[in-house]
Amino acid sequence: MRGVIMYVPGDVRVEDRPDPTVQLPTDAIIRLTASCVCGSDLLPYRGQDQMSGPTPMGHEYVGVVEEVGTDVAAVTPGDFVIGSFFASDNTCEICQAGYQSRCIHAELMGAIGTQAQFARIPLADGTLVATPGMPDADVIPSLLAASDVLGTGWFAAVAAESRTGKTATVVGDGAVGLLGVLAARQLGAERIIAMSRHEPRQQLAREFGATDIVTERGDDGVAVIKKLTGGYGARSVIEAVGTQESMIQAIRATRPGGHVGYVGVAHDVMLPGDELFFSGVHLHGGPAPVRRFLPELIDLIWQRQIDPGKVFDLQLPLDAAADAYRALDQRRATKVLLTL
Amino acid sequence: MRGVIMYVPGDVRVEDRPDPTVQLPTDAIIRLTASCVCGSDLLPYRGQDQMSGPTPMGHEYVGVVEEVGTDVAAVTPGDFVIGSFFASDNTCEICQAGYQSRCIHAELMGAIGTQAQFARIPLADGTLVATPGMPDADVIPSLLAASDVLGTGWFAAVAAESRTGKTATVVGDGAVGLLGVLAARQLGAERIIAMSRHEPRQQLAREFGATDIVTERGDDGVAVIKKLTGGYGARSVIEAVGTQESMIQAIRATRPGGHVGYVGVAHDVMLPGDELFFSGVHLHGGPAPVRRFLPELIDLIWQRQIDPGKVFDLQLPLDAAADAYRALDQRRATKVLLTL
Repeated sequence: MRGVIMYVPGDVRVEDRPDPTVQLPTDAIIRLTASCVCGSDLLPYRGQDQMSGPTPMGHEYVGVVEEVGTDVAAVTPGDFVIGSFFASDNTCEICQAGYQSRCIHAELMGAIGTQAQFARIPLADGTLVATPGMPDADVIPSLLAASDVLGTGWFAAVAAESRTGKTATVVGDGAVGLLGVLAARQLGAERIIAMSRHEPRQQLAREFGATDIVTERGDDGVAVIKKLTGGYGARSVIEAVGTQESMIQAIRATRPGGHVGYVGVAHDVMLPGDELFFSGVHLHGGPAPVRRFLPELIDLIWQRQIDPGKVFDLQLPLDAAADAYRALDQRRATKVLLTL
Repeated sequence: MRGVIMYVPGDVRVEDRPDPTVQLPTDAIIRLTASCVCGSDLLPYRGQDQMSGPTPMGHEYVGVVEEVGTDVAAVTPGDFVIGSFFASDNTCEICQAGYQSRCIHAELMGAIGTQAQFARIPLADGTLVATPGMPDADVIPSLLAASDVLGTGWFAAVAAESRTGKTATVVGDGAVGLLGVLAARQLGAERIIAMSRHEPRQQLAREFGATDIVTERGDDGVAVIKKLTGGYGARSVIEAVGTQESMIQAIRATRPGGHVGYVGVAHDVMLPGDELFFSGVHLHGGPAPVRRFLPELIDLIWQRQIDPGKVFDLQLPLDAAADAYRALDQRRATKVLLTL
């Protein structure tokens, strides 16, 4: 099969790789319908994450089940399925509490690499969710978004306790931040403030439900949020970047007793304990337990009530993956879909 | 009146100070019945907090209203009252959400100094809560505890979502940690693990409801907590110390999706963003909004359902305040009550 390998930072190649096979009775093999490149794939691409050698890439996927191990009961060959970037058993106490990304048997799909024609999905029964039937082509991008960026934005909005009657603020205008806007709107937030200085992303934020755009950053941005919220700060803030500046901005924009839902993969972040202490905020986040939300998200997409696939503003064939990485790195694209 | 002044670290004196007077129509003057020395008073005493000059000390208080300003309506002279270490208006959006310690008009009682015969209480209507009548002498220590250490331990247990059917773990065996045990028990936690290596404090923890004592600290302590919780970690952890070690210990002892309620005043704490991110815990805490809980706590004490006053293991007259500080500093006492 064809699949993406990153050799060193900046060097992405599409190569012939061995077809995956069922290794454990709980495995499934899927033929991918689409895959994509994630903001977090840029961390090794830019040399911000250490690489130990040539690495298969990709952790987002939708596709059709080809083969299942003898213990797999929930999905069968021919099913169209979606899974999260963490495989999970969905039965341990952590999964049952809704934290499947921290399942005691969690396996990182990024180590398997789903920017490829086929992929082995461990713990298939706990990981994969089948759609009601074969999807129309126009909903494939949205279903693919559910695999990570939508699920992550949704978790951030839930962690930030976005809900009816509240104002939600979103720090970060990447795909996850934009889908955090969509999630906050779906969860009932009436006013949604998107912090963005990029015109096309502001436009998409508005389409997804943003009512206000704030272009200022850092403490200037915090001052504007306070002004917009009666001087108190926001009740509900989604952090979708993962830098020191964005975390501090999110915490300072939140009123005491408010909630910060943070999903930007933390990079070189050190939170001063005293600032956090006196902020009085609730802080919750981490790798999103996307599996928790998949049934609900698939249903919303299937009913065409949400269209998160709009975040894909570039579509390229798998063999052009190197171009996809470049476009994302140079911010020429928000999110790139790879066709197969 | 007599009152405590700290001149430089380690130098505490009881001196004649001017009697406080009503300065604003929202003020009340109280005659203190009892006061005490707090673990946080040790921060300047030990030179860990910068001092800008001689400072009145004390922020915990119970007493009788002597005089009120013209705008005060909720309490009247003769009332026995309790308040928190932050004066609060109890009407702003932050107060109404239950975060009175971050009230937009909050005033720190420590700047006024309640280790004294009298004290001016700003924003009396929003700050003070009167008891149903004059209390019996035996409940005075418990009412005094409600002013800070009980209210703070209670908030920590609420922030950690201690509740029926859950296991609560408490990091820290000072007065606040011990009262966190009491709070977790009252809130319904069935199993309560106290982390303590001091025999008399272990004893009190058991009296307050601890079912297990763990003497190990740091990652050794975390390993024991994991073993006691099926390998998952605790669902609910109270942090009542405020050091780097205790915060990391609390976060690591908590399972993904679990809750850390932290109330130890953070000192030289820096939380690594990546560790926090991958922990998947909920983190909430800060200066406890004691005012939120006062009516409920006063009622429990009045009905003699709880006896938090047991944390006072030394009682001295106000004029012996220097001895009180020394006893606390040298860990000869858990909590010292000052009589007036």
